[in-house]
Amino acid sequence: MDIPTFDDVKAAHERIGDYVHRTPVLTSTFMNERIGAQLFFKCENFQKAGAFKARGASNAVFGLDEAQAAKGVATHSSGNHGLSLSYAAGRRGIPVTVVMPRTAPDAKKAAVRGYGGTVVECEPSTSSREAVFAEVVAKSGADFVHPYNDPRVIAGQGTCSRELVEQVDDLDAVIAPIGGGGMISGTCLTLSNVAPKTKIYAAEPKNADDAARSFKAGHIIADDAPNTVADGLKVPLKELTWHFVSNHVEDILTATEDEIVDAMMLTWQRMKIVMEPSSAVPLATILKNPEIFAGKRVGVIITGGNVDLNKLPWM
Amino acid sequence: MDIPTFDDVKAAHERIGDYVHRTPVLTSTFMNERIGAQLFFKCENFQKAGAFKARGASNAVFGLDEAQAAKGVATHSSGNHGLSLSYAAGRRGIPVTVVMPRTAPDAKKAAVRGYGGTVVECEPSTSSREAVFAEVVAKSGADFVHPYNDPRVIAGQGTCSRELVEQVDDLDAVIAPIGGGGMISGTCLTLSNVAPKTKIYAAEPKNADDAARSFKAGHIIADDAPNTVADGLKVPLKELTWHFVSNHVEDILTATEDEIVDAMMLTWQRMKIVMEPSSAVPLATILKNPEIFAGKRVGVIITGGNVDLNKLPWM
Repeated sequence: MDIPTFDDVKAAHERIGDYVHRTPVLTSTFMNERIGAQLFFKCENFQKAGAFKARGASNAVFGLDEAQAAKGVATHSSGNHGLSLSYAAGRRGIPVTVVMPRTAPDAKKAAVRGYGGTVVECEPSTSSREAVFAEVVAKSGADFVHPYNDPRVIAGQGTCSRELVEQVDDLDAVIAPIGGGGMISGTCLTLSNVAPKTKIYAAEPKNADDAARSFKAGHIIADDAPNTVADGLKVPLKELTWHFVSNHVEDILTATEDEIVDAMMLTWQRMKIVMEPSSAVPLATILKNPEIFAGKRVGVIITGGNVDLNKLPWM
Repeated sequence: MDIPTFDDVKAAHERIGDYVHRTPVLTSTFMNERIGAQLFFKCENFQKAGAFKARGASNAVFGLDEAQAAKGVATHSSGNHGLSLSYAAGRRGIPVTVVMPRTAPDAKKAAVRGYGGTVVECEPSTSSREAVFAEVVAKSGADFVHPYNDPRVIAGQGTCSRELVEQVDDLDAVIAPIGGGGMISGTCLTLSNVAPKTKIYAAEPKNADDAARSFKAGHIIADDAPNTVADGLKVPLKELTWHFVSNHVEDILTATEDEIVDAMMLTWQRMKIVMEPSSAVPLATILKNPEIFAGKRVGVIITGGNVDLNKLPWM
């Protein structure tokens, strides 16, 4: 297992600086008064391609040597990672192929193509996806950039909390959503090095609580097809992300679907920012567990803002 | 007619500094490439009470002497001005009454009360509103703070573009929505003093284009009950705002309802910010008139972010 180090985070930050935003940190008097804590929202919804995933994808793409870069990169993702990898590859001017189920929304396919990516469709099953993806890689020699279980990706995501601790002093805690664990792993990697006293919480939908159950059990539990409005958080932990979660996370908190949608609406209404359902899970768990956060200075990572405005969860 | 001066803007800025935000300016590579101009979005949707109106309202409230302050303030508004005046009065701890039609949405009444304001209901007609409002003022001795035809309010709104020109150098143009003309008047007042070469454009819904027709005719034309999704822009110019519009505005551009909604969705999708339909009118007119703005540095004032998430115009 190739575990990234904090030097990798620093190298990533240097490498991707021209291609990703140093995103702003927003605060809200309303939220602070409501919760009795000081919350600092790190707004990766304002990131390139609309999500923190641009960090890890850019680090992978811009770290390739020329020979590999010429062959391009590939991934399977119908979400932000596919979009972000297309963005990064487009910026470097190298080929990128994203394998997506033919049932994925046309808007997501169009968005990948909008950044210059090639979409290859598979059937909506794991076996088809793996077969189609293997063929893509065999033909093109493209480098596989996994959405999260990749040291380059984790080091890239670690640049987010590195900025956060530069932007905000003395954080008692940082909380981020957990799906496959890429953002949380990057957060662990950075904070364990530069702010070891800052506690790290992960937030997960109750309907997809495999990470919370893994955390309690002490080994990875993977669910089959969980169902949650937080569609970025359905994927399971893998060995690299489990390494960071099991070693550095303080706790994994969960929220119901209603709690997630309520927190999402509250954020849109009060902070006037567009964010994904997945990004509302941390606030939902904070509202649910005020005793953990009362009086504390808490960094909250808003992971992304790519939503279908015609299919909002409260419609 | 008591025309405010730039000294009034400077005094307002000093007076309200502790109660309103210096809002951020956002940029978007996507928007710049799409339009072929450099756009700088001044985000008053992040302002206190969710709109630029907090500036003018705070200037009026904090400029009162103690005797008048004790009697409080009053206005008639079912929109952002009523909310903002309630916010400002709440911060000073003085009484505030907002006369609203009994048919106004409960959420708007609740928002006024949430800031400590008193809602007095009238029938949804001008005669009832005026009668009820006169009674409120006669009984309480409250100071009437008009939503826009008030020199204190215009001076307060002028602080917005004063920040904008500090935040962004060498603007060729600034564009803002026009309804009653409070924001545009404040913009004229400031820019004619500190950046006289910067052209000022106003943007208006085609369905409520009384200001555009007034501008062409050379005198105020007031429409009866115009119908537009940009519900903050239905009110007519008054003598104070006409003074600024007729003397300093370069042109008033209009956009259709579909163009406004498209620009609103584009902003939400690409910039990840929640803004009102009224705030989308400037971008709609820029998209429609690229020849005016091509190659220019353009400040775009996003006036507010108070929308009913359950009644979005594309639903």
